[in-house]
Amino acid sequence: MTALVQPLAANLVRIRPMGIDTYQECVIYMRKDCPVCASEGWNSQVRIQVANRGRTVVATLNVVGPGPLEVDEAGLSDAAWLALAAQEGDVAQLSPSPPLDSLRHVRAKVYGNRLDIDGFSSIVDDVAAGRYSPIHAAAFVTACAGDRLDLEETIALTRAMVSVGDRITWPRGPIFDKHCVGGLPGNRTSMLVVPIVAACGLIVPKTSSRAITSPAGTADAMETVAPVILDLPAMRRVVEREGGCIVWGASVRLSPADDILIRVERSLDLDSEGQLVASVLSKKVAAGSTHVLIDMPVGPTAKVRSVEAARALSRRLIEVGGAMDLTVQVVESDGTQPVGRGIGPALEARDVLAVLRQESDAPVDLRERALQLAGLLLELGQAAPKGSGLEKARSVLTSGGAWRKFLAICEAQGGFREPPQARYSAPIPALRSGTVLEIDNRRLGRIAKLAGAPRSPAAGVDFRAPLGRSVEAGQPLFILHAESPGQLAYATTYLEAGPPMVRVG
Amino acid sequence: MTALVQPLAANLVRIRPMGIDTYQECVIYMRKDCPVCASEGWNSQVRIQVANRGRTVVATLNVVGPGPLEVDEAGLSDAAWLALAAQEGDVAQLSPSPPLDSLRHVRAKVYGNRLDIDGFSSIVDDVAAGRYSPIHAAAFVTACAGDRLDLEETIALTRAMVSVGDRITWPRGPIFDKHCVGGLPGNRTSMLVVPIVAACGLIVPKTSSRAITSPAGTADAMETVAPVILDLPAMRRVVEREGGCIVWGASVRLSPADDILIRVERSLDLDSEGQLVASVLSKKVAAGSTHVLIDMPVGPTAKVRSVEAARALSRRLIEVGGAMDLTVQVVESDGTQPVGRGIGPALEARDVLAVLRQESDAPVDLRERALQLAGLLLELGQAAPKGSGLEKARSVLTSGGAWRKFLAICEAQGGFREPPQARYSAPIPALRSGTVLEIDNRRLGRIAKLAGAPRSPAAGVDFRAPLGRSVEAGQPLFILHAESPGQLAYATTYLEAGPPMVRVG
Repeated sequence: MTALVQPLAANLVRIRPMGIDTYQECVIYMRKDCPVCASEGWNSQVRIQVANRGRTVVATLNVVGPGPLEVDEAGLSDAAWLALAAQEGDVAQLSPSPPLDSLRHVRAKVYGNRLDIDGFSSIVDDVAAGRYSPIHAAAFVTACAGDRLDLEETIALTRAMVSVGDRITWPRGPIFDKHCVGGLPGNRTSMLVVPIVAACGLIVPKTSSRAITSPAGTADAMETVAPVILDLPAMRRVVEREGGCIVWGASVRLSPADDILIRVERSLDLDSEGQLVASVLSKKVAAGSTHVLIDMPVGPTAKVRSVEAARALSRRLIEVGGAMDLTVQVVESDGTQPVGRGIGPALEARDVLAVLRQESDAPVDLRERALQLAGLLLELGQAAPKGSGLEKARSVLTSGGAWRKFLAICEAQGGFREPPQARYSAPIPALRSGTVLEIDNRRLGRIAKLAGAPRSPAAGVDFRAPLGRSVEAGQPLFILHAESPGQLAYATTYLEAGPPMVRVG
Repeated sequence: MTALVQPLAANLVRIRPMGIDTYQECVIYMRKDCPVCASEGWNSQVRIQVANRGRTVVATLNVVGPGPLEVDEAGLSDAAWLALAAQEGDVAQLSPSPPLDSLRHVRAKVYGNRLDIDGFSSIVDDVAAGRYSPIHAAAFVTACAGDRLDLEETIALTRAMVSVGDRITWPRGPIFDKHCVGGLPGNRTSMLVVPIVAACGLIVPKTSSRAITSPAGTADAMETVAPVILDLPAMRRVVEREGGCIVWGASVRLSPADDILIRVERSLDLDSEGQLVASVLSKKVAAGSTHVLIDMPVGPTAKVRSVEAARALSRRLIEVGGAMDLTVQVVESDGTQPVGRGIGPALEARDVLAVLRQESDAPVDLRERALQLAGLLLELGQAAPKGSGLEKARSVLTSGGAWRKFLAICEAQGGFREPPQARYSAPIPALRSGTVLEIDNRRLGRIAKLAGAPRSPAAGVDFRAPLGRSVEAGQPLFILHAESPGQLAYATTYLEAGPPMVRVG
């Protein structure tokens, strides 16, 4: 036995792209017989810190046989290669991932203890730095779900999430924003509210998220008509020129931890009240907003299912907003059925364009919801007297001012384009004649996802049977759209296996 | 737009081993331009069901660039290749992973609802079949942790875990077992109790687990002296010949879901009472045991920290055992310090061998704990009159009968061998002279893990400073063992960064 303590070796290895897309997860591939693995005693699943060009990531080790790599090389997954800004020929330094001390706060939360700002900050720092494996992130998300965060904890989590990302300041205020807590397919009002109120002079630098558990987020829908991946200087230029924008929040790194947690929530189809509030408000605070109008659809199959739940969530949003110097106003809206006709990024964008262009078959419900929200925001921003916001919003839409502003915003973001059309579709007919009595929004969203939304932007559901509509047997209740025959078949198989999604009686 | 619904295509692809060790996770590698990916619309991270030779696994898709694979081939990670019993040239059928309906039960648990046997069964079935991703499994583990399972739920989970695995029946009973709830480094009494009571005629088919959050499980320690990966017929032959065995439970698939959940718990360093009870008792029931003696060390840094917690856990074990027709007896023991000297698979096995061989420096505490447990088990099995079990156990040890039985069991399992010795070591000296006042078992276990235990069997801590021992400054409190300089340096770096692990005053 040799008595020997030596300092951590330099552990330098040539890195090269492995050409493997592991989505957001960082994976490093090394040979079992490589000197670094042998000297460190590393096996598969060990978490390794990789440093290159002043950046670091924590990657999961996959040990590979001889073949793809030389013995002194390490391969990186696409996500790791990108995060390290690596270039062919780079030499990276490897070290064991430092022990994740913040996990003790996750465990404390699991055991029902309260966390303070230090606890949340250490967790959120580690998450944002990519030091949490998917298992760690899933444990944190789960431990906070099911209403296990109280008011103070939610404020602490919100602050922690703001502090870990970039923060935008604007030369002049007030700064307005509009948000929907989601859960209602097709409720794409932001793409209408932003151009309307921007046309009236309010400043609305809207950052949107991609879908969490839904078939499309505003960022997904907007991306089918204009680029949404803008860095902060580009976003500033758009807002300075047009007063508003609709960009993907993650591309300006306003809340980098949130983007990782959202991936886990999506995989679990799980939202938690505390994390929902922290996620929404941390992004608003980081974006420099001072006033936020929140649309909260309420219905038995929407995200918020009862008036009581809506009240509780509204109170939490307003209280946490107050603690962050953010004026929050919440509007409860009808969440019993989809808004507009489209469910899925491109299909929802089509509805928005129809309203803006005042086409004869534009969805009235989407238009009226957007006008109501825009009116309230105009009143909140004192751009319209109390009680006359709706009227002002409507006049901006009918005058064509909203459409011109929307096009101008799209042009400023990189150029307007028409949304794509899916290659495959299948009408789903009513099995009997009668009146539409009930709609299962959750399962409608599910089927749009099975058809490929949001990853396939043109995929989703074109919904034709609103509540109260009389339908004939054989008439389509909705039309499935997909980019591949496999996905179309997958969605219809699921559809046929379950109870009807639209009840006709 | 083409209206087209076609049945799910055959989706047949040639499979080949990718030579990538992803540990237990099943990963499938395909080219983005392969016809199946294109037709199904699959992207990275999609979960795909792979069927081959009558077996199926659900694997995570990683999309790869051209190079390693032909366009019509799919590569499989080592774990997937093994699970599918695949051979070069096989053609597998791919399909989208069926929607995980059991996740709604996980969500219900997250939201604080109780689950019944159907809920747990559907979750455990999916886990055992490999349909849960690490994220899904982590959510289930976390949702059940923190004492969120009540008695009935724990019984239901136990039943669900029994029903999903193999179940052993024995030609004659009673069948005895002995278990330690863990948390106390070096407490390797099973390797002593089994040969003692087997030498007295009891039947003890002991299945052991590998480490969950500790530096070594009994299976890890036993594996350094004999093979422990035996299938059921092999295990039966050992027990028929010698009356006892000490094998790795997972190798006989007594509770396949548990083995997957344990991996997640290890990664989170998290145990939950309900899952602990279900994990322990499901394996005992599946192994055909009728009587189980449970050793429960209690101490401020052991797994069970207080007498109250011990009482609650004992009650739960006895109650759930009763519901499963299993007689459970619990012994609380001293959990204030490590047992024996070794912490880590080989180091713990060395202590066991020293006791069996009656070497002069054999650890007295390990010997006495084992004798006490063996005595109680002999009384429980009516192999010794009430009050004389300890005496009988001691005589079997001193006569050499226990050592002969241990060797015979090892031989029957495939052959005895001496445990390995680590290549590198570093003594950690006392910084001052005085008496050992306090020991942080958790951090001692942590440092043994940082040194490489249990994956490196010879790694760990050789502990030399029991409570109350007088030590001189400079004298070693413990000696770190590692298989690589990197791991040794990693452990000492962690040691130097924290407060002392052994308080001398």
